[in-house]
Amino acid sequence: MSDIDLDFERGKRIGMPEIIYGEFKSREQIHKIAAIHEEKQANMLVTRCTAEQVEGLTGEYDAVAGTFTRIHNEPKTLNGLVGVVAAGTSDAAVAKEAVNTLRILGCECKDFLDCGVAGVHRLIKHSDDIKKCRVIICVAGFEGALASVIAGLFSQPIIGVPTSVGYGVSAGGTAALNAMLASCAGGVTTMNIDNGCGAAMAAHRILHTD
Amino acid sequence: MSDIDLDFERGKRIGMPEIIYGEFKSREQIHKIAAIHEEKQANMLVTRCTAEQVEGLTGEYDAVAGTFTRIHNEPKTLNGLVGVVAAGTSDAAVAKEAVNTLRILGCECKDFLDCGVAGVHRLIKHSDDIKKCRVIICVAGFEGALASVIAGLFSQPIIGVPTSVGYGVSAGGTAALNAMLASCAGGVTTMNIDNGCGAAMAAHRILHTD
Amino acid sequence: MSDIDLDFERGKRIGMPEIIYGEFKSREQIHKIAAIHEEKQANMLVTRCTAEQVEGLTGEYDAVAGTFTRIHNEPKTLNGLVGVVAAGTSDAAVAKEAVNTLRILGCECKDFLDCGVAGVHRLIKHSDDIKKCRVIICVAGFEGALASVIAGLFSQPIIGVPTSVGYGVSAGGTAALNAMLASCAGGVTTMNIDNGCGAAMAAHRILHTD
Amino acid sequence: MSDIDLDFERGKRIGMPEIIYGEFKSREQIHKIAAIHEEKQANMLVTRCTAEQVEGLTGEYDAVAGTFTRIHNEPKTLNGLVGVVAAGTSDAAVAKEAVNTLRILGCECKDFLDCGVAGVHRLIKHSDDIKKCRVIICVAGFEGALASVIAGLFSQPIIGVPTSVGYGVSAGGTAALNAMLASCAGGVTTMNIDNGCGAAMAAHRILHTD
Amino acid sequence: MSDIDLDFERGKRIGMPEIIYGEFKSREQIHKIAAIHEEKQANMLVTRCTAEQVEGLTGEYDAVAGTFTRIHNEPKTLNGLVGVVAAGTSDAAVAKEAVNTLRILGCECKDFLDCGVAGVHRLIKHSDDIKKCRVIICVAGFEGALASVIAGLFSQPIIGVPTSVGYGVSAGGTAALNAMLASCAGGVTTMNIDNGCGAAMAAHRILHTD
Amino acid sequence: MSDIDLDFERGKRIGMPEIIYGEFKSREQIHKIAAIHEEKQANMLVTRCTAEQVEGLTGEYDAVAGTFTRIHNEPKTLNGLVGVVAAGTSDAAVAKEAVNTLRILGCECKDFLDCGVAGVHRLIKHSDDIKKCRVIICVAGFEGALASVIAGLFSQPIIGVPTSVGYGVSAGGTAALNAMLASCAGGVTTMNIDNGCGAAMAAHRILHTD
Amino acid sequence: MSDIDLDFERGKRIGMPEIIYGEFKSREQIHKIAAIHEEKQANMLVTRCTAEQVEGLTGEYDAVAGTFTRIHNEPKTLNGLVGVVAAGTSDAAVAKEAVNTLRILGCECKDFLDCGVAGVHRLIKHSDDIKKCRVIICVAGFEGALASVIAGLFSQPIIGVPTSVGYGVSAGGTAALNAMLASCAGGVTTMNIDNGCGAAMAAHRILHTD
Amino acid sequence: MSDIDLDFERGKRIGMPEIIYGEFKSREQIHKIAAIHEEKQANMLVTRCTAEQVEGLTGEYDAVAGTFTRIHNEPKTLNGLVGVVAAGTSDAAVAKEAVNTLRILGCECKDFLDCGVAGVHRLIKHSDDIKKCRVIICVAGFEGALASVIAGLFSQPIIGVPTSVGYGVSAGGTAALNAMLASCAGGVTTMNIDNGCGAAMAAHRILHTD
Repeated sequence: MSDIDLDFERGKRIGMPEIIYGEFKSREQIHKIAAIHEEKQANMLVTRCTAEQVEGLTGEYDAVAGTFTRIHNEPKTLNGLVGVVAAGTSDAAVAKEAVNTLRILGCECKDFLDCGVAGVHRLIKHSDDIKKCRVIICVAGFEGALASVIAGLFSQPIIGVPTSVGYGVSAGGTAALNAMLASCAGGVTTMNIDNGCGAAMAAHRILHTD
Repeated sequence: MSDIDLDFERGKRIGMPEIIYGEFKSREQIHKIAAIHEEKQANMLVTRCTAEQVEGLTGEYDAVAGTFTRIHNEPKTLNGLVGVVAAGTSDAAVAKEAVNTLRILGCECKDFLDCGVAGVHRLIKHSDDIKKCRVIICVAGFEGALASVIAGLFSQPIIGVPTSVGYGVSAGGTAALNAMLASCAGGVTTMNIDNGCGAAMAAHRILHTD
Repeated sequence: MSDIDLDFERGKRIGMPEIIYGEFKSREQIHKIAAIHEEKQANMLVTRCTAEQVEGLTGEYDAVAGTFTRIHNEPKTLNGLVGVVAAGTSDAAVAKEAVNTLRILGCECKDFLDCGVAGVHRLIKHSDDIKKCRVIICVAGFEGALASVIAGLFSQPIIGVPTSVGYGVSAGGTAALNAMLASCAGGVTTMNIDNGCGAAMAAHRILHTD
Repeated sequence: MSDIDLDFERGKRIGMPEIIYGEFKSREQIHKIAAIHEEKQANMLVTRCTAEQVEGLTGEYDAVAGTFTRIHNEPKTLNGLVGVVAAGTSDAAVAKEAVNTLRILGCECKDFLDCGVAGVHRLIKHSDDIKKCRVIICVAGFEGALASVIAGLFSQPIIGVPTSVGYGVSAGGTAALNAMLASCAGGVTTMNIDNGCGAAMAAHRILHTD
Repeated sequence: MSDIDLDFERGKRIGMPEIIYGEFKSREQIHKIAAIHEEKQANMLVTRCTAEQVEGLTGEYDAVAGTFTRIHNEPKTLNGLVGVVAAGTSDAAVAKEAVNTLRILGCECKDFLDCGVAGVHRLIKHSDDIKKCRVIICVAGFEGALASVIAGLFSQPIIGVPTSVGYGVSAGGTAALNAMLASCAGGVTTMNIDNGCGAAMAAHRILHTD
Repeated sequence: MSDIDLDFERGKRIGMPEIIYGEFKSREQIHKIAAIHEEKQANMLVTRCTAEQVEGLTGEYDAVAGTFTRIHNEPKTLNGLVGVVAAGTSDAAVAKEAVNTLRILGCECKDFLDCGVAGVHRLIKHSDDIKKCRVIICVAGFEGALASVIAGLFSQPIIGVPTSVGYGVSAGGTAALNAMLASCAGGVTTMNIDNGCGAAMAAHRILHTD
Repeated sequence: MSDIDLDFERGKRIGMPEIIYGEFKSREQIHKIAAIHEEKQANMLVTRCTAEQVEGLTGEYDAVAGTFTRIHNEPKTLNGLVGVVAAGTSDAAVAKEAVNTLRILGCECKDFLDCGVAGVHRLIKHSDDIKKCRVIICVAGFEGALASVIAGLFSQPIIGVPTSVGYGVSAGGTAALNAMLASCAGGVTTMNIDNGCGAAMAAHRILHTD
Repeated sequence: MSDIDLDFERGKRIGMPEIIYGEFKSREQIHKIAAIHEEKQANMLVTRCTAEQVEGLTGEYDAVAGTFTRIHNEPKTLNGLVGVVAAGTSDAAVAKEAVNTLRILGCECKDFLDCGVAGVHRLIKHSDDIKKCRVIICVAGFEGALASVIAGLFSQPIIGVPTSVGYGVSAGGTAALNAMLASCAGGVTTMNIDNGCGAAMAAHRILHTD
């Protein structure tokens, strides 16, 4: 079959590198892609990959997030802080994927875990810190109510990331996804389920054009 | 075809009368059922009915709730107040169906409208009054986040009623239903979409056995 | 990333402790949470966890229910018996989760297994015992018809718990869930699929405010 | 476009006439089909049709069932009684469609309405009569639990017909359909939602080959 | 927890024994149930079980069908042959479950495999044999078209069993299920996906009351 | 708002004109589009439109198909006949939409109605004529089994068009759609539900490049 | 029942006024809400309303968008242009709702209609103008591919709004919604189906904090 | 049970051999089928099979595509090139299944990988080569937008194959499937998810009748 054809012009076109989606790719395909990046001295981020897929590559594997990062040139830091607010400990994987993506895109961030609405005081005590963020990424599974509460309290851009954390009707994340899309609080935007990486890219789109 | 066979023993068996579900019944069927009730001097509640269906019957039609009530004997009042908390003005129809059903079941209630989480202070200002209720019925459409927030703040039994208010992914009420079922806050119970009547019956089950 | 932030105030606020949802959490996260509980001498219940996740912790692991319980201070016993009625042997896991949660919440309970409607006489022979319960938790998979039959026979609060027991159209529990939500018998309340823990919490909400 | 091509050989092949499905057909198409039947002196049944569609045709329109019947030659009566058991008054339309179809197929039947499981004694009082039937057609909407209860009590062939009677999760009949398919009671067979006509044909398949 | 409560009266009530559904049951539960059967010298059929679950029990395990059969008393043979027609080799598991269930119910049967409509001549060459059957069980995955073709050609009772054989839109069997329910050919009845056992029970309901 | 911007270059690019999708467009928008076509003397086809939307325009409105056609220059006739095979009279609207689109694209066609698999002999009697077609468009609702049977009998390209004709599980056409996609017969291609127009365009793509 | 309780503090809290969702509200409720706004001299926007609902009120009704606008005090204009790019003429209603909401929020905008990917040159010819926008709102029905193409070409924040324009699998907008959520192009954010108003609010969140 | 009955006449009837679908078949069944082919010296292709299933057979196993090929007689080469255009590296498995099927059907092909719309220039640079193809197979997961873009640019027959590559709303391939079915670009035909084999057969239907 024909060869892998990476999109190295993406940086020029839309201001951020192509990020490699690891799931469904074989170890061989990923190593081949990595070799091309090494040759070009290009920074590389692989998401949703396993330790086996990236074994033997130079770089940093994050087992919680399932990401592999290889930095050749430190990315230029953008203005503006990104807040990553997560509902529970179980949402850490997705939150961490966002954090690792923000790093390779040059965005500074601060995370706030365990802010679920079952104990809303935990969110409120972080109010002053959250108000300092330029963009808020809100990560939540189950019923995803956190996005609505945040949107009612803060005026910044809000990027909701539903997670697949849950069971029964919330298994797979659809309940949280629909809750964020249907939020009665105005102007919540939503990513695909578990798409912490995409949320970081959306935040980058806001920051790099400020 | 064979005749209508009503369940007048239900009161003895489970402590509440059979309630007539009006949708899908013809005007003739409802009038026939009403005549049987008149003859037995039995109280009667018809839900989800139109003005046309009950035209000509003695009793009270509530156009907002779509209910028809005919009282022959004032029901015995039970101990304990039922709070009916609704997210928005659009949820009034379902909230009203609950209120009208509570009345025929002998349950006292107090309603709290416009408590949606987009402006959570509106809920919090009613805190003291809500704490006095023995049971809380929580009515909400769109993403139904109100149930989670209430369950995190109050310790009483909570009966969530998702409504079909919404559009896109929340059209028909499934988003709110799933949010209530998947609530991260413990012990929320849920009714079918728009089932204000059933919520009232569930509240009655709690009160009449106290 | 930031630290785990548990909600130890929940007991004061809503009368029951935070229960730890084990699925999606790493062994490390659970052990960290356990250490905080040990330090505070707080009772702890972990649901949906595996033996591996809790290995090495002091406490009781129940392999059928998938729960881990650690009691420091015997919970105060509440008035009122909770009946846990299950349709079949296959529903035992969910019924047991409810039973174990009731225990840590201080609720006494009695279970009735193999009461499926395919042989309804098995339910009817327990009628007198079920009538003595303050609350009925009804656990059923497949088509979940048990909830409707129970609601037609008994007047107490009924908390339906659909289980994921089944295959084809009932795989995952949606058929049973929808059957309970759509029950033609009045006032059945419903929990998320397999949520035995939540049903126990809902029962507790009724009992502790009696 | 090419002409209508009816299947008049069906009677020879599978023992019953082609039945005309009225929905989605224009008044003109139905009248054209009727004219062909008149010419052949063939009995004709149109289901799911409106009064407007059959206006001007000789025959009997049943407004409850939405069927039009035109008998030229009385069908041969088959051995064996078909019982049509329905859960509620709202299910009468579908039950009646079954009854009218049974008539044109030469099957005798007896109907039992208002047998919903919310008051299961109403079913039980008909037990002796139901036991005399060769086949039981069970018609129910909402959660469709009636089929499971009947299958646990009687040994005859059971043909479940879920109806679209209900709202929220049971709107359109899917909840009842899935409940019948997933019945924990053995050997329930199921038809499409509202398919009273098909249930009658399935009963005919059993009777005519006895 | 309370004890297992089997329904040994089912034979008297509906003419067939309780069949044990093996999935979701532990090895211990199944062995306990087997011991009760041994003690009562009752025939026993377990469906959807693995070799591990029944290891050590006396009886016959069928690895293709996933069934375990233990016969103490040869069941009484009923009049009438049941034809089991399957679309492809991949549907053999479900067809075999039907065959094994028919055996314990005393029904004689003949199977016809590889009759898929992609090569409809393979079905037609069996026409004479199929015409001799009293009941036809039709087993098919993918798009399930076989049921419609059979119903157009034969006049006997037809029990469709959709299988989970397929991928993409037919993964899990829903496409075949809906095709059978929506069949344009009259009087096809349908079972839950993969429910070969239930189809056999439905056939038994027809035969034993002949 | 900005102006309508039609794609008149489409003919050059992909060999067929832009076809106007009428649904969701106002009468004003359609008349504006028509005026632009008149000015350019361009042929115009509007699909899924009502008589009201095109009232006052010069051209031909087909009430069965819901199409409006305006021919300025007779399209060049392509080689090869397109067969349009439909399952039932109710599918005529979609078949007619295909026929009218084929006409404006310069494709000759022949239609075969009432070929549903419930009476498969009606299809077989047209075998010789169907074998003469270069492409077969297969239009069917309900369970859509016709596509599989045709694909097993004929070797030409087959374009399946599921229709929304049906009720219950086939309401809206999803059952037929999935059946065509999952066809066990090789090489059936599928269009969106009711998309007769698209099927004609797909046929045109085959013919014009022959 | 209790009174309407509007959230006039929202402006202070999150920088934009409460917008009134008209669907599901009665004419009376809307007029009551309008009176409160008049009294407070507060600007008011009602979305998804009919001409009947707002008849008699002072202000501007837009029949295409289904919005009612009443301006008392011209909103402060924010820096940065919002581009509203729509796939087809049929998407104009949703695009217009976005435009009207942007106006009341003080955001300047420019619209680009008929940019569907079936003729991608129509999008490309607007490239220079689109590059000048601070935020891009992308409105598309059917398969919603426009969002992916735009995200591959431009580096600004992209807010996708799927519309309910389409039929068959795209009826109701789910196909377009899922396409936007699953976009292979990085950083597309998504709104609920037809939520032009919410997209404008999300754009405002970006602009007012710049 | 009865024996395997292969359809060796299919070649004569529809011009291509029966292809063996490996999933759901046991190793024994596949080896039995292979032996029949060996005996008849017939070419054989097994799709969706594992290395274990075909271990010990003479022929070629392709681990990426999951296919097993055994050629006895080189198939006759047809006129016309088939282009296989795939969106990303992850779609290679499905593309390869198409390529391997085309080979056994005697169709020549050329593949174009990594043509996803996130970097549409990669597609455009292959324009001249793609224009030379008689048929285009378009393979894409995630949101499947590639099919719409290709259909807007090229005039040949287009066979879309959605893949199950993706997560969240695109997990399993439904988002891509619906996008292709709902494509705003005219005349895209669609296969079941991951059905590369079927796409090749559809291409063969076009070529062999040219």
